[in-house]
Amino acid sequence: MHLNAFLMNAGHHDAAWRHPLSTPERVTDPAYFTELARTAERGLLDSVFLADGLALWGTVRHNALGGFEPLTLLSALATATERIGLIATVSTTFTEPFSTARAFASLDHLSGGRAGWNIVTSGTVDEARNFGRDEHLEHGLRYERAQEFVDVAVKLWDSWQDDAIVLDRAAGIYADTDKVRPVDHGGTHFRVRGPLNVPRSPQGRPLLVQAGSSEDGKEFAARHAEAVFTAQQTLSDAQAFAKDLRSRLHRYGRAEDDVRILPGVCPVIGSTEAEARALEQELTDLQVPAYGLAQLSGMLGTDLTGLPLDGPLPELPEERDINGNRSRFALVARLGRREGLTLRQLIARLGGGRGHHVVAGTAEQIADRLEEWFTGGAADGFTIMPPYLPGGLDHFVDQVVPVLQERGLFRTEYTGRTLREHYGLPRPTATTPGSTTGSTTGSTSREDHRS
Amino acid sequence: MHLNAFLMNAGHHDAAWRHPLSTPERVTDPAYFTELARTAERGLLDSVFLADGLALWGTVRHNALGGFEPLTLLSALATATERIGLIATVSTTFTEPFSTARAFASLDHLSGGRAGWNIVTSGTVDEARNFGRDEHLEHGLRYERAQEFVDVAVKLWDSWQDDAIVLDRAAGIYADTDKVRPVDHGGTHFRVRGPLNVPRSPQGRPLLVQAGSSEDGKEFAARHAEAVFTAQQTLSDAQAFAKDLRSRLHRYGRAEDDVRILPGVCPVIGSTEAEARALEQELTDLQVPAYGLAQLSGMLGTDLTGLPLDGPLPELPEERDINGNRSRFALVARLGRREGLTLRQLIARLGGGRGHHVVAGTAEQIADRLEEWFTGGAADGFTIMPPYLPGGLDHFVDQVVPVLQERGLFRTEYTGRTLREHYGLPRPTATTPGSTTGSTTGSTSREDHRS
Repeated sequence: MHLNAFLMNAGHHDAAWRHPLSTPERVTDPAYFTELARTAERGLLDSVFLADGLALWGTVRHNALGGFEPLTLLSALATATERIGLIATVSTTFTEPFSTARAFASLDHLSGGRAGWNIVTSGTVDEARNFGRDEHLEHGLRYERAQEFVDVAVKLWDSWQDDAIVLDRAAGIYADTDKVRPVDHGGTHFRVRGPLNVPRSPQGRPLLVQAGSSEDGKEFAARHAEAVFTAQQTLSDAQAFAKDLRSRLHRYGRAEDDVRILPGVCPVIGSTEAEARALEQELTDLQVPAYGLAQLSGMLGTDLTGLPLDGPLPELPEERDINGNRSRFALVARLGRREGLTLRQLIARLGGGRGHHVVAGTAEQIADRLEEWFTGGAADGFTIMPPYLPGGLDHFVDQVVPVLQERGLFRTEYTGRTLREHYGLPRPTATTPGSTTGSTTGSTSREDHRS
Repeated sequence: MHLNAFLMNAGHHDAAWRHPLSTPERVTDPAYFTELARTAERGLLDSVFLADGLALWGTVRHNALGGFEPLTLLSALATATERIGLIATVSTTFTEPFSTARAFASLDHLSGGRAGWNIVTSGTVDEARNFGRDEHLEHGLRYERAQEFVDVAVKLWDSWQDDAIVLDRAAGIYADTDKVRPVDHGGTHFRVRGPLNVPRSPQGRPLLVQAGSSEDGKEFAARHAEAVFTAQQTLSDAQAFAKDLRSRLHRYGRAEDDVRILPGVCPVIGSTEAEARALEQELTDLQVPAYGLAQLSGMLGTDLTGLPLDGPLPELPEERDINGNRSRFALVARLGRREGLTLRQLIARLGGGRGHHVVAGTAEQIADRLEEWFTGGAADGFTIMPPYLPGGLDHFVDQVVPVLQERGLFRTEYTGRTLREHYGLPRPTATTPGSTTGSTTGSTSREDHRS
């Protein structure tokens, strides 16, 4: 089982910052994130993970939003940790392939091979408006751009062969320029000459992670992703998602074992089930309705302001008309309808994990749930989203991880050095650079798997 | 006197990587840069500085080029150091104001107020070709874009007031949204809504550094720069530059003391003058002529391939026709003509500092030169460019700094915590955010100077 710790300011519950167990005054304190990353490393987790948005999410009036930019923060954490993987979210919609490929290659060197890139296409018009656009790029076009973006990034990472640097001082030859080659990419969205200005990094390429579960998202994941972060409410939904995703891999010449599926789980841990449920209720009671309604409006692409909190969901748009996070829309709409929830109930249900699976109970009970999903083919591991921080992560590491270890489900020591090794994924071979030969599938060779 | 250590792979001399005193095998080892930054901090220097280019500079066949991206590397160094300032070069031509402003705000939080931004417009067509363009943006347009870019960045940094976060858990109010305001910038090059998604950082804004010395560059510096890095071959050239730059400040409502001028100096240090000159000659003897000729061709905007190394400079274009680094063209052309140098001699003269002032001698002699320029009104301090690393920086810190301290020219302990405090510059007050009131001059208020 693989475990990825998703770090977020005061914690994942939208009222965490109001709870006395959280420390929202530390969200711009690097020592706070260092402690969190070291806690995750103490628990032998595969990685820490940072989400990202290129605008202030929601309203900062009622939540501890804003803070570090992921690549800079993870670069700092690279120095403060030794083994744990470092996954940063970066959008392909508002960056350039040369800069993004370069930053990840740099992070991979800084961390000795622990960099991962969670590839997103961004979901809000607020982000577009910070980059000179009035409207957000259409969903399908965003994914089209993302496909080409990753193709270019792969070509850039592969533009230096592993043995390009010869360092022959006597002859005055630093690098063999037959092994540092332009990529000469000319496509629909990008023209990039290359080569990258970073020598090939320890992992060759960062681990490629993807987090969209729409049709476009799944197809993108099948082509490029080595790990997938997904929101699934139930075991059967998660099983269906995993089966669907795996079935798409063969089209891109990939095997079922080439991807790690890591649904999000928000664990609310208590020494008894009653204590866990009481904590969950405390957090629900701290929710600010105006904030919850604004978040729900965003997820549903529908302005809910002024609607009665104890009334039902109004008529919603069709999924195909959603230009934001389409899979999250579908999940929330389905959840609301399936259980006939009022707006207030839906806000409460989404408070802990914004649509991810929430489980409240003892460490044993949480381990049971993880084991059930894992052995049931729904997951290769989990993205752990503590409801509040730092304590929620401490409890997971100190109480749940040992149970998983006792059951033989989780490692008892790190056996690898790199993020790819932690996830049991191969180090890719550099494809021969040049415009005609760059990888377009994102597939990786297992030939030089170093784990 | 202020001292800024310019770190570069194997060192600043273009043949440094071939010299046994350098360690080019460590250019992608984060521990190497950590050691360099800690050496500079041991010497109580104001800052370390990283240059940048968005393409592989020159030919990697004959020099140790490529390596870390500056913002990620400095974020890692923020964790590994405590007091020294961290200045990263980022181009305004190939990035977006939201992303760049955000990254520097993040670095400023990570480092407790030690971030500086060296603002460049990029000088080569190779960079343009990595970003979808066939030709490089015209020199004047680049600076026009840079002006607006910095205006937007300042608005974004100022979009959070210092006291915006109220953290009232009981009332459910995290931030006072009257103090986190959109910037609603709509200009020629950018439309950015804001606010930034990073709370106001320890320095308010990073230190703004500028390094172009063309007419456009000087005007830009007069408007925005708080520190200026410049290449000057002689004392009189440096005096004229400083006088010229200071004379431009009043147009932007700024005082002569608002800018620190820090010419580059490459110190070749020996225990005797003869030893220093011998080391300089060793490095010259290791130069690869093909590399030097390629570099010189780039600086002069003229293909020199195939010309006799022992012949004179050919006819050169006019400065106004240069679309790359215009001030460097002027400096090199003047140097070649003034002294009637052959190509080989010019390549040797440029080997150590690419046009920056090179001084070879004992620690006392180097201190003499720095003192002469400093007391002569040519400089407020220096950007130190060791010819080889790590030893060249060790020698400067261990041998030259104590002489400067004995003479009362340089600090004997850090008195400030932030980069602005080291340079004796004020922390800017956040201008009231909003589209009509954002600062367009880059001027800073001294009212809340915290040093």
